[in-house]
Amino acid sequence: MSDFRQQALDYHAFPKPGKISVEMTTPAESVKDLALAYSPGVAEPVREIADDANNAYKYTAKGNLVAVISNGTAILGLGNLGPLASKPVMEGKALLFKRFAGIDSIDIEVTHRTTEEFINTVANIADTFGGINLEDIKAPECFEIEQELQKRCSIPIFHDDQHGTAIVTAAGMLNALEIQGKEISNVTIVCMGAGAAAIACMELLIKCGAQREKIYMLDRNGVIHTRRENLPVHKLAFANNTDKRTLEDVMDGADVFVGVSGPDVLPPETLKMMAPNPVVFACSNPDPEIRPELAMATRDDLIMATGRSDYPNQVNNVLCFPFIFRGALDVRATAINDAMKVAAVEAIRAISKEEVPEEVLIASQSKALSFGRDYIIPKPMDPRLCSRIAKAVGQAAIDSGVAQLESLPTNLQY
Amino acid sequence: MSDFRQQALDYHAFPKPGKISVEMTTPAESVKDLALAYSPGVAEPVREIADDANNAYKYTAKGNLVAVISNGTAILGLGNLGPLASKPVMEGKALLFKRFAGIDSIDIEVTHRTTEEFINTVANIADTFGGINLEDIKAPECFEIEQELQKRCSIPIFHDDQHGTAIVTAAGMLNALEIQGKEISNVTIVCMGAGAAAIACMELLIKCGAQREKIYMLDRNGVIHTRRENLPVHKLAFANNTDKRTLEDVMDGADVFVGVSGPDVLPPETLKMMAPNPVVFACSNPDPEIRPELAMATRDDLIMATGRSDYPNQVNNVLCFPFIFRGALDVRATAINDAMKVAAVEAIRAISKEEVPEEVLIASQSKALSFGRDYIIPKPMDPRLCSRIAKAVGQAAIDSGVAQLESLPTNLQY
Repeated sequence: MSDFRQQALDYHAFPKPGKISVEMTTPAESVKDLALAYSPGVAEPVREIADDANNAYKYTAKGNLVAVISNGTAILGLGNLGPLASKPVMEGKALLFKRFAGIDSIDIEVTHRTTEEFINTVANIADTFGGINLEDIKAPECFEIEQELQKRCSIPIFHDDQHGTAIVTAAGMLNALEIQGKEISNVTIVCMGAGAAAIACMELLIKCGAQREKIYMLDRNGVIHTRRENLPVHKLAFANNTDKRTLEDVMDGADVFVGVSGPDVLPPETLKMMAPNPVVFACSNPDPEIRPELAMATRDDLIMATGRSDYPNQVNNVLCFPFIFRGALDVRATAINDAMKVAAVEAIRAISKEEVPEEVLIASQSKALSFGRDYIIPKPMDPRLCSRIAKAVGQAAIDSGVAQLESLPTNLQY
Repeated sequence: MSDFRQQALDYHAFPKPGKISVEMTTPAESVKDLALAYSPGVAEPVREIADDANNAYKYTAKGNLVAVISNGTAILGLGNLGPLASKPVMEGKALLFKRFAGIDSIDIEVTHRTTEEFINTVANIADTFGGINLEDIKAPECFEIEQELQKRCSIPIFHDDQHGTAIVTAAGMLNALEIQGKEISNVTIVCMGAGAAAIACMELLIKCGAQREKIYMLDRNGVIHTRRENLPVHKLAFANNTDKRTLEDVMDGADVFVGVSGPDVLPPETLKMMAPNPVVFACSNPDPEIRPELAMATRDDLIMATGRSDYPNQVNNVLCFPFIFRGALDVRATAINDAMKVAAVEAIRAISKEEVPEEVLIASQSKALSFGRDYIIPKPMDPRLCSRIAKAVGQAAIDSGVAQLESLPTNLQY
């Protein structure tokens, strides 16, 4: 067994199985304590909530509680291994929610037959939580699931594989284009992959100014174009009215490549065909669409990002999901809408351009960092992320009318 | 607002809303930590669980995690106030699980239309947990729900309002009868109330030796007898072939009264009709079927228990549910069966008869306690409860063939 593999298993087995626990936040030592925590005292908050559901935010943990929910149909890059096998990933996500944003988070693994049954199950338990983070659910079901749940629930429903990826990608992309001297509205974009993350990335880039007709999306049958038959609805939205059919066809003169597909699908000779000063996001994990060493050796006018922590410019969802939920919870948002996503993009962009404090370098185990081709996105350990993104997102929720509170809380802990 | 009411609300509002939080149990400070906790390290336990579902007990929190699940249809004595209003009670239960047995526990409130939909919802999320504690679900639906869920799930499903109450009642009752010099197999029992707790109490007393034909159960229409029409199936099991129709009819010469009904339904003159050396469990909460002062003034050969902490002999579910789950989880039981319930009864009885250590008196804020008419059940703060009940229950699970482990764990923390 490899050293890292054993370390990973040990990390999950000790000091006790798993990565999270549930703890008491109130005293339970005296007979009086118990009379307050349980019968008869507990009847008082029960009555208050029965009178006004909003009191659940005052007297229970609901307002700071996010469920991380999966059916295990698309676990990491490993595929459909079932609900139970997804549990370590969901617990990991819960751990990250706590570590980065102080959010109480519990994993729920759902067994189901139909998509409708999954939706019903999650909708039926939704009142328990302040928000729901959907995770590792395969396309195309994930689109219907998220939309339908958001319709039925009055709390934020957020499929992180789609929108977390999209937000971090958009922030990095806009910064990279700025450095390369290009306008998002003018660039030609090639998107390799047509899964949930790919679709969400392209939709958000369009909201940030990209032109739909300048986007070429490819699935395993090549370019998605208007003459292809039987395209599912989520791909149809990206069917390009073009004669181009292959990766080479669309990469010729392209400004941007976004890979959300698989390892080593971008050959150096194809990379050479791109326009001057291109941007390549090779996000397949752990093995990117082209190895950074190979890409940088192929052309030096490139800005490159990957999903890996051992290269510059890591596209990592943890830069977004804890903080977008922090912001949503802080103002009791009923949804995470486009305005909040764009606010998160702008907050991430802005942090990248500021001087990096010494503590960030230490936390990130990094050398000096300054905005440029090797630093277009903040580091995950950057303690500025929480307050900046959460405040921007919370304000956007208020301004766009989905917040149940009228202003940001004044007693923020971050 | 009364002082206690305000204290109860404050207890739930501070230091932050609610009574529980989710915390990390593994380090998440360095870049390396995150690589182990999440991608790419988390793929290792995912693969192990995909290979063998039992590895979920090794690498996730599942094995020590109990869901406290309600639909809010019978909250305390307050009635059907809906799922959200039940949240403080469910969080309270989660707090008690942690406080008394070190069990991680999270509340889930379920919204549903049909009973079938409730069952499906809970069954669909059951894999997440090591056990499920059902709570505050009204009769008769609670019977079908528990039975069907236990059929469909391979983890313990335990409706505490039924079985927790029954176990503590049976333990106290058998001890009281012993002190009164009566045999359970000979006594005549009057059960005032025919709800979930009443049914479960009587069923368990029968398993402990009581004779079904010597039990008279009453609902709001009086004695449940064989000539009554349209009795629901759970009451039919207690239809007595008798001419007696009223409480007075059945109390004449009865040895035992169990009240699981409402306040002040047992008048002193009716109490006087009981056989010598009777036992009265007046468990309606907070106001018992007869006030202890009044009962004791009426006859001094009585042994009495209530649901209240401010009188001797409190029938309190917290004496059982944390520890029966501790025992079940310790051996990965697939159910909580009758053998385990009886083992819990016997363990609780045995503790009551032993010398009470000083630390118990301090924790219970009690004066000297010794087995007798004012001390037939242990105090909730008794630290002996956890190890003794859990071990007895775990061993019973092994002996009765529902444990997935072959022996009790050796590294018990209690």
